[in-house]
Parts: sequence; C-alpha cells; structure tokens
Amino acid sequence: MWGGRFAEGPSSIMREINASIPFDKALWRQDIRASKAHVAMLGAQGIVAPEDAATISAGLDQVAAEYAQNGVPENWDLEDIHMTTESRLAELVGPVAGRLHTARSRNDQVATDFRLWVRDAVDEALAGLNALQKALVQRAGEHVNTILPGFTHLQTAQPVVLGHHLLAYYEMAARDVSRFADARARMNQCPLGSAALAGTGFPIDRFATASALDFDRPTDNSLDSVSDRDFALDYLMAAAQCALHLSRLAEEFIIWASQPFGFVTLPDSLSTGSSIMPQKKNPDAAELVRGHAGRIIGALTSLMITMKGLPLAYSKDMQDDKPPVFEAAGLLTLCLAAMTGMVEGAYFRQDRMRAAAELGYATATDLADWLVRQANIPFREAHHITGAAVKLAERKGVALDQLSLEELQAIDSRIDERVFPALSVEASVASRASHGGTAPVQVAQRVAQARAALGLVG
Amino acid sequence: MWGGRFAEGPSSIMREINASIPFDKALWRQDIRASKAHVAMLGAQGIVAPEDAATISAGLDQVAAEYAQNGVPENWDLEDIHMTTESRLAELVGPVAGRLHTARSRNDQVATDFRLWVRDAVDEALAGLNALQKALVQRAGEHVNTILPGFTHLQTAQPVVLGHHLLAYYEMAARDVSRFADARARMNQCPLGSAALAGTGFPIDRFATASALDFDRPTDNSLDSVSDRDFALDYLMAAAQCALHLSRLAEEFIIWASQPFGFVTLPDSLSTGSSIMPQKKNPDAAELVRGHAGRIIGALTSLMITMKGLPLAYSKDMQDDKPPVFEAAGLLTLCLAAMTGMVEGAYFRQDRMRAAAELGYATATDLADWLVRQANIPFREAHHITGAAVKLAERKGVALDQLSLEELQAIDSRIDERVFPALSVEASVASRASHGGTAPVQVAQRVAQARAALGLVG
Amino acid sequence: MWGGRFAEGPSSIMREINASIPFDKALWRQDIRASKAHVAMLGAQGIVAPEDAATISAGLDQVAAEYAQNGVPENWDLEDIHMTTESRLAELVGPVAGRLHTARSRNDQVATDFRLWVRDAVDEALAGLNALQKALVQRAGEHVNTILPGFTHLQTAQPVVLGHHLLAYYEMAARDVSRFADARARMNQCPLGSAALAGTGFPIDRFATASALDFDRPTDNSLDSVSDRDFALDYLMAAAQCALHLSRLAEEFIIWASQPFGFVTLPDSLSTGSSIMPQKKNPDAAELVRGHAGRIIGALTSLMITMKGLPLAYSKDMQDDKPPVFEAAGLLTLCLAAMTGMVEGAYFRQDRMRAAAELGYATATDLADWLVRQANIPFREAHHITGAAVKLAERKGVALDQLSLEELQAIDSRIDERVFPALSVEASVASRASHGGTAPVQVAQRVAQARAALGLVG
Amino acid sequence: MWGGRFAEGPSSIMREINASIPFDKALWRQDIRASKAHVAMLGAQGIVAPEDAATISAGLDQVAAEYAQNGVPENWDLEDIHMTTESRLAELVGPVAGRLHTARSRNDQVATDFRLWVRDAVDEALAGLNALQKALVQRAGEHVNTILPGFTHLQTAQPVVLGHHLLAYYEMAARDVSRFADARARMNQCPLGSAALAGTGFPIDRFATASALDFDRPTDNSLDSVSDRDFALDYLMAAAQCALHLSRLAEEFIIWASQPFGFVTLPDSLSTGSSIMPQKKNPDAAELVRGHAGRIIGALTSLMITMKGLPLAYSKDMQDDKPPVFEAAGLLTLCLAAMTGMVEGAYFRQDRMRAAAELGYATATDLADWLVRQANIPFREAHHITGAAVKLAERKGVALDQLSLEELQAIDSRIDERVFPALSVEASVASRASHGGTAPVQVAQRVAQARAALGLVG
Repeated sequence: MWGGRFAEGPSSIMREINASIPFDKALWRQDIRASKAHVAMLGAQGIVAPEDAATISAGLDQVAAEYAQNGVPENWDLEDIHMTTESRLAELVGPVAGRLHTARSRNDQVATDFRLWVRDAVDEALAGLNALQKALVQRAGEHVNTILPGFTHLQTAQPVVLGHHLLAYYEMAARDVSRFADARARMNQCPLGSAALAGTGFPIDRFATASALDFDRPTDNSLDSVSDRDFALDYLMAAAQCALHLSRLAEEFIIWASQPFGFVTLPDSLSTGSSIMPQKKNPDAAELVRGHAGRIIGALTSLMITMKGLPLAYSKDMQDDKPPVFEAAGLLTLCLAAMTGMVEGAYFRQDRMRAAAELGYATATDLADWLVRQANIPFREAHHITGAAVKLAERKGVALDQLSLEELQAIDSRIDERVFPALSVEASVASRASHGGTAPVQVAQRVAQARAALGLVG
Repeated sequence: MWGGRFAEGPSSIMREINASIPFDKALWRQDIRASKAHVAMLGAQGIVAPEDAATISAGLDQVAAEYAQNGVPENWDLEDIHMTTESRLAELVGPVAGRLHTARSRNDQVATDFRLWVRDAVDEALAGLNALQKALVQRAGEHVNTILPGFTHLQTAQPVVLGHHLLAYYEMAARDVSRFADARARMNQCPLGSAALAGTGFPIDRFATASALDFDRPTDNSLDSVSDRDFALDYLMAAAQCALHLSRLAEEFIIWASQPFGFVTLPDSLSTGSSIMPQKKNPDAAELVRGHAGRIIGALTSLMITMKGLPLAYSKDMQDDKPPVFEAAGLLTLCLAAMTGMVEGAYFRQDRMRAAAELGYATATDLADWLVRQANIPFREAHHITGAAVKLAERKGVALDQLSLEELQAIDSRIDERVFPALSVEASVASRASHGGTAPVQVAQRVAQARAALGLVG
Repeated sequence: MWGGRFAEGPSSIMREINASIPFDKALWRQDIRASKAHVAMLGAQGIVAPEDAATISAGLDQVAAEYAQNGVPENWDLEDIHMTTESRLAELVGPVAGRLHTARSRNDQVATDFRLWVRDAVDEALAGLNALQKALVQRAGEHVNTILPGFTHLQTAQPVVLGHHLLAYYEMAARDVSRFADARARMNQCPLGSAALAGTGFPIDRFATASALDFDRPTDNSLDSVSDRDFALDYLMAAAQCALHLSRLAEEFIIWASQPFGFVTLPDSLSTGSSIMPQKKNPDAAELVRGHAGRIIGALTSLMITMKGLPLAYSKDMQDDKPPVFEAAGLLTLCLAAMTGMVEGAYFRQDRMRAAAELGYATATDLADWLVRQANIPFREAHHITGAAVKLAERKGVALDQLSLEELQAIDSRIDERVFPALSVEASVASRASHGGTAPVQVAQRVAQARAALGLVG
Repeated sequence: MWGGRFAEGPSSIMREINASIPFDKALWRQDIRASKAHVAMLGAQGIVAPEDAATISAGLDQVAAEYAQNGVPENWDLEDIHMTTESRLAELVGPVAGRLHTARSRNDQVATDFRLWVRDAVDEALAGLNALQKALVQRAGEHVNTILPGFTHLQTAQPVVLGHHLLAYYEMAARDVSRFADARARMNQCPLGSAALAGTGFPIDRFATASALDFDRPTDNSLDSVSDRDFALDYLMAAAQCALHLSRLAEEFIIWASQPFGFVTLPDSLSTGSSIMPQKKNPDAAELVRGHAGRIIGALTSLMITMKGLPLAYSKDMQDDKPPVFEAAGLLTLCLAAMTGMVEGAYFRQDRMRAAAELGYATATDLADWLVRQANIPFREAHHITGAAVKLAERKGVALDQLSLEELQAIDSRIDERVFPALSVEASVASRASHGGTAPVQVAQRVAQARAALGLVG
C-alpha cells in the first residue's frame, strides 16, 4: 500500500510488531460510520461523483454486514482495520474504492474512529454509573435508620446510619458522572479532514462530517488533531477515579463480609467457593473490582508514558494508545456491573452492625459535645474529661452509659443525669442534623434529593 | 491533645513518621482563613459568645502576622499546621482558644484547607496557561508565512507554516484551561462542618461558611467530605496532561536546537553551558520541563495508589496526599513559566526551516493530489504513480520539481506541465485551506480567533 | 562558570528551575569523598603536582568540616553541590582549586556521587531489614503454638499458628535482602574518569579511584557511565517491593486492631488519638506505612518515566533522578523502623485469635482430608460431602464437630467416630506438617533456621 | 466445583468477571507439567495408588495432546485452566481424576504454574538479550574507527566512535542479563505442596516435586508461597529496565533517521510507508519499541498497585497478576527482536556522521585540555580561554582549527602551533584512551572482551 518506494517488504518481526488489526478491529463500527460520513460529504461537495459515492457507501454497508456476521478477518499484511476495510471494499466495488481515501489520511481517520469509540465508552460508563447510583439510593432509602459504627482509621469512631454511608458512594458516583460528562464535552470535536497533518487542498466540508458524526464542530488545528490523544487520557482519568471509588466500596464489602465483622452477606451469585475448603464463600467479585482498579490505573499510566515527549505530528508510538483504553473500558464496565449487583443483592446484617456500633465508645464525642453545650466548657477541656471517662469505662469493661452518675461526677462535677439520653446510639445519630450529617432526617432529605436527580418516582 | 486515654507518649519514630508540619505548614494561609470563617459563623449562630469569637478571630490574625513575618515553627510534638496554630492561639488568647474547635474536627478542617490550597493552585495554573497561550499566539502571528517541514514519525511529511505549528500548542493549552476549569467547578463545595465524619449536633450554618470561603455551596455528605480527595486527583490529572503537552513542546525545542536541525536558537537566559566543554549551549530548561513531566505523572500515580481501597471515612494514609500535590504544583508553575519564556525568546531560523522543508520530497502528496484532481485518478493509484516519481528523483538526487516533464510523463502520461506550480512549498501550504489546515489564510484566521478569545487587542 | 560563550546570564526562572542545590546538597559527603579520591589519584599520576593535590585535599577537608558544622549554603547561582564545593574550595585555597576539575566533568562526578549515595541507602535498607527480620523471628518464636484463623479472601480458611504467619513476612524480608544485595553488587562499579562522555586524554588511573571508593572496578564504557541511572532504578525497585511487603503487614495490623477483629493491641507509642473523639486509639503508623508505599511506587514510576527515550549521553532530565530517590529512601527508612517497632511492641490477643479460629468452619478441609485418607474417597467427592456437612452445621448454627455422628453418617455412611479428633483446631494445625506447613513442629524448625541465618544465639 | 454450600449459581456478570480462562489458558503447558510432577510424587509416596497415578499421568498427556492440536477450550463455567484441564481429565479417565487434587489447592497450583511460566519468560528474555548483544558487538567491531558527534543535551559535545556508542548499549544489555539472572535465581523455589495456605497433612515429598520441576528447592513458608508474587514483579522490573534501554536506542534511531540528521538508513524490512505521502519511509519499528516501553512500565505499575496492601493469604485480586505479565512478556520479545533486527540491518551513513562531528566545535575540550597539559594552566582558566576562542570562531563562521595562530595567541599568548594537531576529530578520539574511553584502541579492546564474554569466535 506504500507504492513503489520500497524495494523490500516487511520482515516477519515487522509484520508482527506493526499489525494493529488484532486489537483495532474493535473499531470497525466507528470506521465504517466515519467512512460513510466522509464519502457522503465527498459526494455532496462534488469531490467524487455522486454515483461513486453511493457505490462506495453501499459497499461499506456490505462490509459492515459481513463483519457483523463473521467477525473481522485478521490479516497482518493489511495491518489495521482501515486497510482491512478498504481492501475488502475494493474487492466488492472495484477500483472506485480508491476514491474513498481522497482528502483524508489514516492519521485523521484513526483519530476520528478512536474518538468515536471513546465517546461510546463514555456513554457506557455513564449508563453504568446511573445504574449504580440508582442501586445505592434505593438501598440507602431502605436503611435511613439502620445504625452501624462509622470508622476512621478502621477504628470505631461515631455511630452513623447505613443510608448515609451508602450515599457517600452516591456522591462519588455523581462526581464520576460529572467527570465523564466534562470529558465528553471536551472531546466532542471532529478531527476528520485534518488529513495527514496539514489539512487538505480538496474543497471538503468539515462542518458537514462533524455534524453527521454527532460532533459539536470540527477541530481547529490539523497538526493538533492528528497528534492529540487527550480524549483518551480524559477517559482513562475519569475511569481511574471511578475505579478508585469502586475499589473503596469493594474493600468495605470484603471487610464487612469477614467473619469477625459479619456486617454483610454477599449474594451467592456474586461469590465463589474453594476447590479445597468446602466451607468457603469468597467475595471474589469485590476482590476483582479492587484488583481491576490497579489495572485501570496501570492503563492510564501506560498511555501517559507513551505520550510524553512525542514531537508533532503523528508518531507510531501512538498506536499503543488503544490496548490500554480497550482494556480499561472492558474492566470498568465489569466493575460497575459487579458493584451494582453487590449493592442490590447484599444482605445487611443489622443486628451485627448495631451491636458493633454500641461497642467501642462510639458516643464519647457526644459526651464531650454535651459538656460543651450544657456546661459551657471549651471543647478541648471537654475532650479531656471524656477521655478520663472512657478510660474508667474501659477499665471496668462497661459501656459509657453504664457508668454511674457518681462515677461520672467524680471525673467532673458539672455532669448531671441529663447526660445519659445523649449517650445512646440513636440519640447520637439523631443529633448530627447539620447539613450533610448522619441524622436520619438529613439522610431522608438527601435520599429524596438524589431520587429526584435520578428521575426516580415515589 | 488526645486526652487522658494514652498511658504512653509517642516514640521518636512515631513522632517523625506522624509529623506533617514539615510540609503542611504550606497550608497556613488557608488554615487561618478557614478558622476565621468558622469562628465567625460560630459567633453568628450563638454557639460561642460573640466576644469570644472576636477574641479568637483577632488572635488568628496575630498568628497569621507572625507566620508571615517569621515563618511557621516546626515542632513535631504539635504534629501539623492545625495544632501548631491552635497552640499558638491558646498562648495568645488563653483557654477561650479551645472554643474554636467546637463543631469541627481536624478531618473536615484539613479537607477544607487543602481544598482551598488546591483551588489556589488551579488559579495559578490558569494564569500560567494564559501567559503561555498569549506567547504562542503572539509568535504564531509573526510566523503565518514561515515554512518548515511538518513531520510525522520525525520524517519530513508535508510543508507547514510555523504559526500553524505553534497554534497546535495553543489548542492543547486551551484544553488544559478547560480541564482546570472543570476541576475547579467540581471541587468548589465546602466540606467544613462535616466534623469528624458524621456531621455535628451544633446548630452550625454550613452555607454561611461555604459562602465566606467563596465556595458555591456546602458538600452534601459528611462521610464523603472527609474521605474525598477527588479534588486533589482532579488537579493532578489536569497538571499531568498539561505537563505532557509541555514535554512535547520541550522535545521539539531540544531537537530543533540540535546542530543537525538548527531550526531554533534558544535564548541564553534559558540555556546553560558546560563545566568541561566550552562550546556548549544546552537547552537545559527544555530538558527540565521534559524531566519534570515524569515527576508530575509520578505524583499523580502516587496519590492514586494511596487512595486505592481505603475504607471510609478518613484514614491516615490520606496524609500522603499533600507532598505529591505540593511537588507537582511547584514543578508545573516552573514548567509553564519556562516554556512561556522559551516561546517568547526563541529565535526561529527561518532559512534553516525553509531549506529543510524543500528536502525530503515534502510535496509528493501534492503531486498525488494533483493527479486526483486534474486527471481524475483514484487516490490509491495516484499514490503509486507518485511513489515511482519519488524513487526516480531519489535515484537522480534531485527534488521532485527538478524532474523533467518527459521523465514524469514516462511514469504516467496524464501528467502535464501544469503540475510544476503545485510542487513548490508555498503552493503546497497555500493549497491546504481546509478548515484548520496549514494555509496561511487559515492560520491568520485562527490567530485572529485566538487573539479575540484571549482578549488581545489589535 | 561557562566561560565567555554566553552574552547573557540566566533569567530568574532559569535560575530557579536549574538549581539543584536545594536537594543535591544531600550528596555533600559523597562529593567530598569522591573529590578527595580523584585529586589523590591526580597527584599520584603526576597530573597535578603532589603539593597541589595535598593543598586541594586539605581544602576539601575544611569545606567538609564547614558543611558538617553549618550545613551546606544554598546559592542558586552556584547551581549544585559540585560548584558550591568547588567555589568554596577556591576561596580557601586559591586558583589551584581549578586543578581539581582536571580529567573529570560534572557528568561523571554526579554519577559517582549519586552512586555512592545510593549504595549507602542500600546499606541502610539492609540494616533496617535485618532489624525487622530479628523482630519477626523473635515474636514468631514466642507464638509457635498460638492459633489464629488463616484467611484467604479475608474469609476464614484454615487454622494456622501466629509464628507461621509472622515467618511469612520473614520470607518476604529475606527476598528484599537478596534484592538489595543484588542491586548493590550490580551498581558497585565506578564511573569516575568517564569525564563528560568520552573519557579523557589525561593518564588517569581509574582502577585506583575505584578502589579508593570501595568499588569493585571501574565501569567499561564512558558513554554508558554518564547516561546510566540503572543503579537508582535498581534501588527504587527493591524499595518498592519492600514497601509492598510492609504495606501488607500494615494492612493486617490495621484490620487486626479494629474492634470487630480485636486480634492485636498496638503500642500507645505507635498510635495516636483524635482531636474530637476522646475514645480513639488509631493505628496511624501502620496507615502511614501503607500510604508511604504509594509514594515509593510513585517515586519509581517517576524515574522510569524520566529515563524513557533519553538519547545518549547525559541529558538534563536526569537531574530529576534525585528527588524521587531521596524521598523514597527517607520514607523506606521510616517504614522499616515503624514496622519493626510495631512487630516488637504489638500485644497479640490470643483469646480473640483462638475464638475466631474456631468459628467459620475452619476445619472443614480436615474433614475432607479425613475422608480421603480414612475412607479412600477421591478428594473432589470428599469436598462435596464436607460441603453438605457445613451446610447442615450452618443451618443448625453449630460447629462442625458439634454435629452428631448420626447426622454425619446421614450425609455419608463412611464417616465414623474417629473423625471427631481431626476436627479440632489443634489437630488441624498439628496435622499440616508438610515442609513449610503450619504445624508447630515445622514452625519451630523454621524459627531455628531463621535464627541461625540471622546469627541469633539460643 | 464448590460442593453443596451454594444455593445459587453465579450471575452472568460474575461468570464474566471471574473467568480467567481467556488469559490463563496460556499456562496450559506449565499446568500439565506441574500436575504430572504432583501425581508422580503422590504415587511414589503411596498417597494415591501407583496405577491410579499412572492413569492420571497418561490422561494428562492426552489432554496436553488435545490442547496442542486444537487449542484450549474456553468454557467460562470452568473458570480457569486448572478446572478446564481437570474436567477434561475426568471425562477421559473417570472419577480417579479426582485424586489428582489430593494434597494441593488451586492456590499452590497457580503459584507453581505461573512461576514456571515466568521462569520460561526469563529464559526467553535472556535469549533475546544474547542475540541483541551479539548484534551490537558485531556492528561495534565494524565501526571502531567511525567518527560521529557525541551528544549531551542533544548538543554536539565531543567526537566519539560509533563502536563506542554501540557498546554503551552492550553494557546496558549486560546489566539486563544480570538482572534477569538474579530474578531467575530468586524465584527458583517451588511453592507446590503449600496447599491452600497452611500446608497439608498428607505425607507429600516437596523436595521431589521441586526437583522434578527443575526448582532448586521447595519454598519454606506455605502462607507466603500462595501470597507471593515477587517473582512476577522481579520479572516485570527487569523487563521495564530492559525496555527503557531499548527505548533509548529506539529514540536514537528515530532521530538519526530524520532528514536533518541522516546518520542512518533503516532497513526497508523494518520500516513502513504512508497511505497518503508516497515519499515516506517511517521508522515504525523503532517508534513501536519506544511506545511499548510505556506499556511495559504500565504493566509493572499495574501489578505493584494490585499487590499493595493485600492481607495474607491468597486474595482474588491476585488473579490480576497475569494479564500484565503476559502483555509485557509479549511486548518485550517483540522489542528485543525488532531492535536486534535494526542493529543488524542499519546502514550507518559514515559521511554524514563525520561531517556532523566536525561541526559544532566538538574539539573545544581538546583545546582546553591542551592548555592544561602543555601550558600548565588550571582547567577552569583553560575553559575560559577556550570559550573565547569558540566565540571568535562562531563569529567568523569557521571551525576552531581554522582560526589562525595569531588569532589564538591574541586570546592567550601561551598557545603555540602545536595546538593544531590536537583539534582534529581523529586526534580527539584517539586521545581519549582512559579505561572505557572512546579511543579506537580502547574500543577495540572492549569489543574483544565482549566477544570473548559472548563466546564469539575470532
């Protein structure tokens, strides 16, 4: 395909290292779509005869039908999806196929195809996130009053409600949605017509092809257009952050499903057993989500490294842009679906959660706050008094509210019997009614707000 | 500061690994500002007495004045900037200082301080990008007609104009601006008032503190607020892409400044010499920009790894969020300034550029395009004909337009004398007038458009 | 310092981006040492007069004494530690100082200094690992019979003994030792005398300087010597693997210290409290070790990226080699010390561990193995039978060995009363006496072996 | 395969995320080999009847033959290569197949299989490196006297000979060999017999299986054995450094093949053309090597992230260990072969190299050195004098040795006519005869040394 310039064909190692068809065949739908838009424009502009354009377009449809039916053939000599398609087109419609490549190059062609593919991946991620958000909000609504220990440093900190905990992930997912949406808006410009690097002398209409491919407009600089892979990085960055969020939820499910915690029973349908230990029920899906996060970050790292320091315009290094994106997108889709399934199917063991919340002096802060409010003691001093109370309770092996009034007053005389109601886990969560706090009344509002944002009825 | 709960103080290794004051002192301005907003709200809400609030606020001003004058003292026993400030405040205003920490925790305090710092870093990056864009557009405007070889694979491809090349980086910078702006909008919610993890029972007004700190609104979930470092990752991701762009420009300056290329002479003020080779003038600044890109990507990688799989809410691992961000921000500021200086001060050697453009058969595509347009030959066939012409010219050691008409017609009889004007580098660039192409008329339009977008006059 | 070649000095941004003295001052001991070795060789070879060599050497000693006393001054105009030292030397001994730089360049000088520094860092890591190994073996020896649940997927799998668990980390540390030792051996060649890139015409004796600096021999290729940073990467790679191991141990301490697990109480001296929650005792040191692992990996990533695609010989990008190495080395030293302290000071709650081991049907595999051995049933079938027994026990809410013989025989008639002794946790661990297994007899042998390897008495 | 414990089978998303057979089928040879070693040992130890062992072994041979012939079937329900093989074995030999899994678990099975695979990959890398080293030494021997400019900062620094330059890569490859060899030695211990995590109660002989699989010995700790992936990281780290070296050589070929440099013509067999620009001959293979380095580093990053913070023993995240290793190994093999081909097939344009060496005042250091040696001037002063000479020559547009003696003496009167011979590029390279320097006499020695080390005759 390179004309009479070469005296010798590629060596076998060259054919192997150079062929991208084993992975870029994934672009076939986008390649066909972009070629059809291009040839329609060429026809409309009179750059190719309208009947030739029609012939080519029909040929492309036939190629697409063959691919859909039989898959894309992998012939290394044809290098990539673009030459594979054009070669088959030439078999089907004859030499007129050669006119399709007028006023374009593989450089702008692949930039366009890949951008279309990534845009589709963004839309798939957005759909997956929407499903996850709905599952989170649904389960949060069921558990507005379910108390569990909130942890910091994985140490019991203060009681919270499960609905509040689940909504924390709703917020993360909302930021992920925002990030993918930003990426989509930024990438939605069409590079087609930038040709090899400098634009073209043919009287093409780039606004027409951009519009036909649902882009907002054509790009403004041909050199940049064929050298730019920001759109792929934007996707991977949004995917990496999303995967980080999912890895945190996965970590929690894994810890919660352990025997000592016992906060959750995961659905059989998302667990596995052991080939040697018959009693095992393992949270494999959660672990794989956590592991996949590593690979998605690795994919991002890979593409950043590949792009660093490349001079303009296209360099072949950029062929290494696709495997990381394809891998990350496949993993992200699986991760989103698996976590959605886990959220939907998890059985939360409310008794275990509540029992754990009552251990660990989770309401010590409430005692300190009570001292500030009722006895007007500066917080730092109240914190010291409470520390002494915790120490006494620990030594006696009892909960804070099982200390006697006398014992508490021995620590600080300003304590009176009104303190006891403040020390229950229910009182604790109910009290934290600041905006965004864990009080059930706040959580119920947040659930309602989220349901409205997601368009959920009721 | 942890009350009576601990029988033993920290070991020396604990004091060293735990102390963040050596780096988080960088947050002092943000810490003072957020504390003042917090105490003003506490006073307005009657949670602390207005006169106490005023005392604390004045004390904070005094602490700030001391820091501005003498720097922030580093006492490992006080761990971090928050305790350092509060400790000094207590010395200055007495026990009432203890009321400042009412209804907040270090968890929401550091989340607020750090977010304010990162928002400032975003603004600094935006200012640096603006300066770079102006420099690029200015130089592009000077070189709308300066011809150099456009490269793909670092092989001469087609002639382009230098203004077009520089505007490619303007486009990258424009995407960087868009990315930082998106990050800013997404992070602009205030976590203050989320307390340790669950919100607070004090009747605080989170909308008031959010507004006082120029946030759009308070965050909606207290667990998420103290666990979230998306804003830092968003910053690092935008910084990494920006650094990648700068590394590409740096690579080009380095190659262009080499003796064999000789396209550019870098300003002495951004070059260095050698301690041993007296003739050297090295493009150190460009190399450091390229090197720094590696470290900025490393910083992003570092924070992604740290955040992966952390359960809610705050974990101490998150203290490792600041060094990578501080390092990346410092490096990015330097990189932006250095590249702006290089763009402004570079002397472009137009003679060398033009001479190189005339080598390498850069107008071969123009011959192929001419065949398509004038002789109505399918592009693929025209490409073959041109390949044969290049091969002949190479063998003869001459440029394409130095082949005789007879020689060209011997290759394909459809060629006639009208072909020669199409083969000059001027004709080549002038012809590529598609939207975003390298034709000077196009480039001049893009320059005008960019100047308008940047608010440049004339 | 670049002679008369430059018409203009560096701009302020250039001075700032270029100056490495803020971080490479850490190399001062190595720089002085290497300079002394160099000048001694120059004197011995007659390249400089012996009395000049002696003057310079004495001057270097004085500079070193000043640095030790007052620190290294940071003057950006002197760029780096090498010029800083040479400049001060010239003040002290006059123009003869200029002879020190004969037959060397900053390129081989920094390569030598940095290699010496990294070799010291290797030795520091080896010392830290040795202390950790001793702590692990000591505690393992105390807990040869302490039973806890072994987990896979964080699900109770089979009982193991704590000594066995701790020795797993001893094995990891042993591989770390091996990796650092390999790195040390590979880096132990001296680049000094490679000059700028091509070697030198002066009759130097590279074997002499190599020997004086405790290197095995000089390097064999001057271009490689000034371009190579493999030694720094080897260090970072060993550090990254070590940090990964420590992060796993840290994760276990964090989980084990949580209230629901309660397997361990960490020493107060390596824990912190909370500014708001008076009951908290947080495993901060472990979390910081886990977090630091992220930064150490980030440092490795950073340097790999920086080195990628650099042409020979020295490029200024390579100045970005030091900050990641310095940062990683500082963090690794802290991590090793903190984990050693935690291993030494942890109080293992044997009652909680044993109680957990008895839950979760941890001896189900023992039942399956019993069926294979006593009843000659293929393992896969035995696995099925056991699964049914676990299911029955779970439904009844009892342990496996609390099922009656009748119940077991109803599941499979080949079971008889000899099965019950096999189902205790003691029997389970005792039975696993294969090489490297968890049987106390095996663990005791491994402890003895490890003690001998570490040279511990008794 | 998990017995009667599960009420419900896996969901479709679970089957998809869980199935590793699409990639771990690559382990089939290792899986068969390890199973055969295991069952032979079981038979020898009397754990299974010898005739059963023989039946199983023959069955495994048949499975292997089927795989070799038809490939490995991908049935997601069978999850992985281990269950796929065992399932087919059961079809072939009946229930006795179930005895194969006695005294092992998938945890130690996969640890063994994967370690065998990685050890093979190490051997493949070593073979590739050997071929590359031979090619480098061969070409170096041809070019002991070929002069080209040595660069630092990509600026002409001092003349060097091409053989010296190529041997720099020989040194890098030698370190790569050493690194892979170290990794191989460290990983060469056999985890088989560690069972699920705790060892086994069956009287197995781990030394026998270790020996049968060519391991040095069995591992010493069963928990570590099933949790450890250091061997995979060691491989990836060695691969990453090797890829970095190759990326540097690739970068040089790309720059050298550019029209302005023109130092090298790459073989047609490792180049490609353009679909649009008929004159192009692109160094695609070199660019792909450079790009692949990014992906190999990404693979390493990915696995480090995945392993961070995993508690003992096996977690399912560790299933994400294989794709990065398989990808990196495939890419590394291609990169080594491509670079070997490029080194072997490159046509070095000696005229262009020499012409470039004579430009750029590459012998300025020789003038400075001459001043030190002949006029006994301190180097720093000689450097200043030379800088003035370069400045004058630049202003006159001539080479250093084209300045007249008068002009030179006007700069410094100590210069005399003996200086001129020192300023030729031949004299320059010949003079640098220090150990490891670029003098042809040194390079010839290094070539001879390298040939001897590689066992090359003549």
